[in-house]
Amino acid sequence: MIITLTTDFGLIDPYVGVMKGVILGLASAANIVDLTHDIPSYDIQGGAFALASAVRHFPEGTVHVVVVDPGVGGARFPIAAERGGQRFVGPDNGVLSLALGMLEGEMAAHRIANESWFRHPVSQTFHGRDIFAPTAAHLALGEPVSAAGPRIGAIAQLTPPGNQGRGARVLNIDKFGNIVTSLRPGELGRGFGLRIGGREVRGLLSSYEDAPTGELFAIEGSAGFVEISLKEDSAALALSVRRGAQIEVETGDVNH
Amino acid sequence: MIITLTTDFGLIDPYVGVMKGVILGLASAANIVDLTHDIPSYDIQGGAFALASAVRHFPEGTVHVVVVDPGVGGARFPIAAERGGQRFVGPDNGVLSLALGMLEGEMAAHRIANESWFRHPVSQTFHGRDIFAPTAAHLALGEPVSAAGPRIGAIAQLTPPGNQGRGARVLNIDKFGNIVTSLRPGELGRGFGLRIGGREVRGLLSSYEDAPTGELFAIEGSAGFVEISLKEDSAALALSVRRGAQIEVETGDVNH
Amino acid sequence: MIITLTTDFGLIDPYVGVMKGVILGLASAANIVDLTHDIPSYDIQGGAFALASAVRHFPEGTVHVVVVDPGVGGARFPIAAERGGQRFVGPDNGVLSLALGMLEGEMAAHRIANESWFRHPVSQTFHGRDIFAPTAAHLALGEPVSAAGPRIGAIAQLTPPGNQGRGARVLNIDKFGNIVTSLRPGELGRGFGLRIGGREVRGLLSSYEDAPTGELFAIEGSAGFVEISLKEDSAALALSVRRGAQIEVETGDVNH
Repeated sequence: MIITLTTDFGLIDPYVGVMKGVILGLASAANIVDLTHDIPSYDIQGGAFALASAVRHFPEGTVHVVVVDPGVGGARFPIAAERGGQRFVGPDNGVLSLALGMLEGEMAAHRIANESWFRHPVSQTFHGRDIFAPTAAHLALGEPVSAAGPRIGAIAQLTPPGNQGRGARVLNIDKFGNIVTSLRPGELGRGFGLRIGGREVRGLLSSYEDAPTGELFAIEGSAGFVEISLKEDSAALALSVRRGAQIEVETGDVNH
Repeated sequence: MIITLTTDFGLIDPYVGVMKGVILGLASAANIVDLTHDIPSYDIQGGAFALASAVRHFPEGTVHVVVVDPGVGGARFPIAAERGGQRFVGPDNGVLSLALGMLEGEMAAHRIANESWFRHPVSQTFHGRDIFAPTAAHLALGEPVSAAGPRIGAIAQLTPPGNQGRGARVLNIDKFGNIVTSLRPGELGRGFGLRIGGREVRGLLSSYEDAPTGELFAIEGSAGFVEISLKEDSAALALSVRRGAQIEVETGDVNH
Repeated sequence: MIITLTTDFGLIDPYVGVMKGVILGLASAANIVDLTHDIPSYDIQGGAFALASAVRHFPEGTVHVVVVDPGVGGARFPIAAERGGQRFVGPDNGVLSLALGMLEGEMAAHRIANESWFRHPVSQTFHGRDIFAPTAAHLALGEPVSAAGPRIGAIAQLTPPGNQGRGARVLNIDKFGNIVTSLRPGELGRGFGLRIGGREVRGLLSSYEDAPTGELFAIEGSAGFVEISLKEDSAALALSVRRGAQIEVETGDVNH
């Protein structure tokens, strides 16, 4: 059974390793996959986007754990949720909402309150170790999310940067400096134009190889969004843009 | 069977992957967990602290391998040790001593001298690959630590920065900038005061959420030590302190 | 069955995790080992060197996937190859050639054209997810490389920086600042001299411990090449040299 981990813990401290020790101590056959531990500290939106872009590529039954949790030990609840055959464990601060929104079917969300699953004493600073890791292990062992605690009607929602009228936004910058926009290729006609960082990009290329060296271009990225790229270079650095930046959109002619 | 790895190899070079290849070539069912590979180069104390803070969260039978080994190829011995049901493999330079000190019961330590376990020829620069990885694999396969070589009476000890009279020390700085001190909450009375980096911190908070924005506070960290933190910010940067820094302690009144 | 991954994806984005999800969705028993994901973006030679230095330490049957693929979506073919009992999957841009050159025996190389193995629709920007990951999973499940597609007579070759007359080259700089040269110890006589970065190094030491503090020395590194090192410090920083730098060689006297 697969358990994925997404955190802002980094890889320098042994926090991630400790979570794995707790999981494997309970569910020795769990197959743990790191999505990323380099979410910027406390960046709920970054964690939500990372999980959302990965979730559909995991098989049914996978348990996804996200620990980006600035309110650890405070009033936010830990939750376990299920949708489309996938399970989710994390704080109810919106970090799970984008991934759950990518899936189809009924959603069930439960507050994690089953203290018999917890590692005791529960630290007020590391619920990843004491609540989320053992909950994920119990789900991987076959317990239903309903065993985690009482059902809740709704979970905290995150509003990702999105399209607004004629404007779009930068959803993410990846390691290569590709600028992931909030636009889907189908929303744009042929010959559309995007204005960002004082520069203009027109039309979609179909592969990186077709791109002329040194010129910005748009391409459909692997997550299904339009990305703005620069061949073997960083478009984000060239344009000095960050996540959330505005993009002005001139829709092309859909019927030509 | 779980094997954990803690090294100063970093993740850029394939050294860690090579150790995993050697382990899996001998013990194909081993479940290898990375504690961290970002120990600063040659930082024996950093490696020792990382393992010590993780060791109690792994199940019995786990084999912990640490390779922070500035003296590789020299006079220090490779050793295998066992305590409290956990096994340890690494150089005898003190890097295993803090973790062994966290466990209870009889300790057995052996020099690793069983050349039939080694990968040959043994490189003078990469005992992680040629001695420690295959030794860990043999232990994971069920060999006892006594099969590694002759028993030794004592292993090299590390003296971590600790409390001295009215002073304490900084044990570690984590990725979030939390300052882990050498103090246990039980050693301090209510209303205690800590002076560090020219600033003063009083009393323990019970969660990050209770902390006022922009003010330093103390909290019991996940390893059981008092930590000094700054809400959603780096206390270590704010105070410009590093591992080993002095903390002046004014004990509170235990009976009020 | 072991599958190794070597990419230039970094660990910040979830691209590596996504590839693992695809692999495990097809081959749930695959044991995935990260060689490194920190190859500099588009650095085919860096990826080739990393895999070449690791390949002989993995057991027979291992499937090695390399995705350093500046031409993704373009004219270069995806290929699957086999030699010496090991299997390889990646773009035909030379990145597999050094590792295949380290092994012995007949080599079989096939273009990957079996679309029934692919994840559809195939993205033009992420063949790692849609072509290479599922191909590796099918090989790990026991399919022969010949099932990937038509056999090809030759694969793209990379020419690593090498010895030329009395000159050698820097093959790699590792995390510790060790300078890996293109020289084998057997090519040099006793008392040889190397001139690099305006400094001279003479003779081979047999362990780091024998090295005097603050002085450059040469030693046989774990990959079998002569390395230039500085005790507990970075030789590469001290000499300001990078991969590809020239080394002037004065061969020692072989018979004395």
